[in-house]
Amino acid sequence: MPNVKAWAAHEKNGKLEPFTFDMPPITDEEVEIEVDHCGICHSDLAVIRNELGYTTYPLIPGHEVTGRIAALGNTAAKKGLSVGQKAGLGWFKFSCGHCDPCLRGQQNLCTSIQGTILGNHGGWAERVRTHWIWAIPIPDELDARDAGPLMCAGITVFAPLVEFGVKPTDHVGVIGIGGLGHLAIKFASAWGARVTAFSSTTSKYDDIKQLGANDIVSSRDSSQWDRLKGKLDFILVTVTAPLDWNKIISLLAPNGRLHFVGIFPEPIPVSIISLLIPQASLSSSPGGARHVMDSMLRFAALHNIMPVTEHWPMSKVNEAIVNLVAGKSTYRVVLDADF
Amino acid sequence: MPNVKAWAAHEKNGKLEPFTFDMPPITDEEVEIEVDHCGICHSDLAVIRNELGYTTYPLIPGHEVTGRIAALGNTAAKKGLSVGQKAGLGWFKFSCGHCDPCLRGQQNLCTSIQGTILGNHGGWAERVRTHWIWAIPIPDELDARDAGPLMCAGITVFAPLVEFGVKPTDHVGVIGIGGLGHLAIKFASAWGARVTAFSSTTSKYDDIKQLGANDIVSSRDSSQWDRLKGKLDFILVTVTAPLDWNKIISLLAPNGRLHFVGIFPEPIPVSIISLLIPQASLSSSPGGARHVMDSMLRFAALHNIMPVTEHWPMSKVNEAIVNLVAGKSTYRVVLDADF
Repeated sequence: MPNVKAWAAHEKNGKLEPFTFDMPPITDEEVEIEVDHCGICHSDLAVIRNELGYTTYPLIPGHEVTGRIAALGNTAAKKGLSVGQKAGLGWFKFSCGHCDPCLRGQQNLCTSIQGTILGNHGGWAERVRTHWIWAIPIPDELDARDAGPLMCAGITVFAPLVEFGVKPTDHVGVIGIGGLGHLAIKFASAWGARVTAFSSTTSKYDDIKQLGANDIVSSRDSSQWDRLKGKLDFILVTVTAPLDWNKIISLLAPNGRLHFVGIFPEPIPVSIISLLIPQASLSSSPGGARHVMDSMLRFAALHNIMPVTEHWPMSKVNEAIVNLVAGKSTYRVVLDADF
Repeated sequence: MPNVKAWAAHEKNGKLEPFTFDMPPITDEEVEIEVDHCGICHSDLAVIRNELGYTTYPLIPGHEVTGRIAALGNTAAKKGLSVGQKAGLGWFKFSCGHCDPCLRGQQNLCTSIQGTILGNHGGWAERVRTHWIWAIPIPDELDARDAGPLMCAGITVFAPLVEFGVKPTDHVGVIGIGGLGHLAIKFASAWGARVTAFSSTTSKYDDIKQLGANDIVSSRDSSQWDRLKGKLDFILVTVTAPLDWNKIISLLAPNGRLHFVGIFPEPIPVSIISLLIPQASLSSSPGGARHVMDSMLRFAALHNIMPVTEHWPMSKVNEAIVNLVAGKSTYRVVLDADF
């Protein structure tokens, strides 16, 4: 008899509908989280639309979860977690623990990685399950009501700063100031870096300064970029719109890096010689490792970094999505569970 | 009155012809090298053909020089160099010394960099001039007769091992086993790495094993690559032919890097999601810094690494080029000065 209530899409592009399912008995390495809040990430919408091609329906989206640990499997109970503890869950919910990347502490690169909403039931539900490695303890100093977006948007922009050795003396560009980009500005600014934001929404410019950007240029009008030529050590691309990539590469300083965290459906054209002259790199990365998640939350607590959110009751998820897609939402929408 | 004999091309694609020019009095920071030997690099041919668009005629090619220091400017004389000393000269001949990359010790990324054969007279001549930073002392243990190709081909493939942190425990792929690739195999093998060579010339396979490759696959028949999927930590591309880049990216291990050292005229299509999943990078680099040149020569001396060469008298440069372009030469052609 189904025992968990949720919101599910039953077909490509389908509306979210009330859905119940039977959660099987908990297994050794599993943690069960009672969901209090869950963000809406653009990748939830992409999976609802099956843009990646891996969606299984009925689909319960949601991978920016915060809540409380409701149950622990026998092994999970020995991993420093306790029932009632505040915990989060992001894009990943399973890593094997014994492949080479796992053994190196890069569980996000696990060769048997499983996504929270790809073939599994996500967080727009009363409860959600995860392997213990991805049940992220939330420090007391952070408000769990708004911490959900850190679990995906936050780690996606924070991990590259760690993994690719961005320095406080670097000049960082952030292209696209939405859910990911606004957190990127906050993190990079607290990191000590000089931050230039690229945004096409001039009405947001005052806001973007408040987030910590040192200056702002248009992301569309590339004539505004000339003074940045050869200056940027690290450019984080949070959009998936086609831009003038070779002109963007020309903004890289020697040893610079153009790093993509959006999912581009089409290949982009890259001029190798424009990478050669400044010894530059182009790269991308999926979320962050478990220890980087923990490090991010400590850093966020220390620097008082939280997403700028807008809350909706989970029962109004369809309206919240319509509002978001229409571009009317603030940086990140968070759903409050109200089953 | 012209006082230096050389071989010069007078027009795009032109044959090399005897040419004399007047070398002005030496300036403070200059070193004059009497040329004994000079390699033929594919980029000499590209500059003769003006493929980069920066050629000035008459062009004296040659940037894999070895010879003896013939004269030192007043400042250059205080930089540890002495007349008569064996020295080499590669692709770069001037760095400013005071821009940020120079101050970091990355003189190859100097913002005022000058190439030996771009707007300057190169090494297919009796004598050549360079700023002292690029007059590379040749260790006694190395045979200067064959050391010229280390100054360009050698540093081009060695520097990425240093700059991008390739580890002895890594699995390195080398695509294209010619002038650059054969040195890449020797260096990567001495580095301790497992080396897989990609070559389309099956007749060279025995030879390639002798160079140090642990195994060899076709660079054209990608069905041979399946067992390498997700295995290669670092892939060095020394060819400029179009290949199936996304399939090559799929061979990268987590944190892997696809690094280009050839000059591609056209942009190549890159799938960002194929970089995202393994947290992979794509990059390119120009030669190496001065301290990396010195480090390379010490490493080459320690491990007995020299290019496999074929010598021609410089007076037969046109025949040597015809032979090279016809694919009849061995890994690297070196011209012996015979003015």
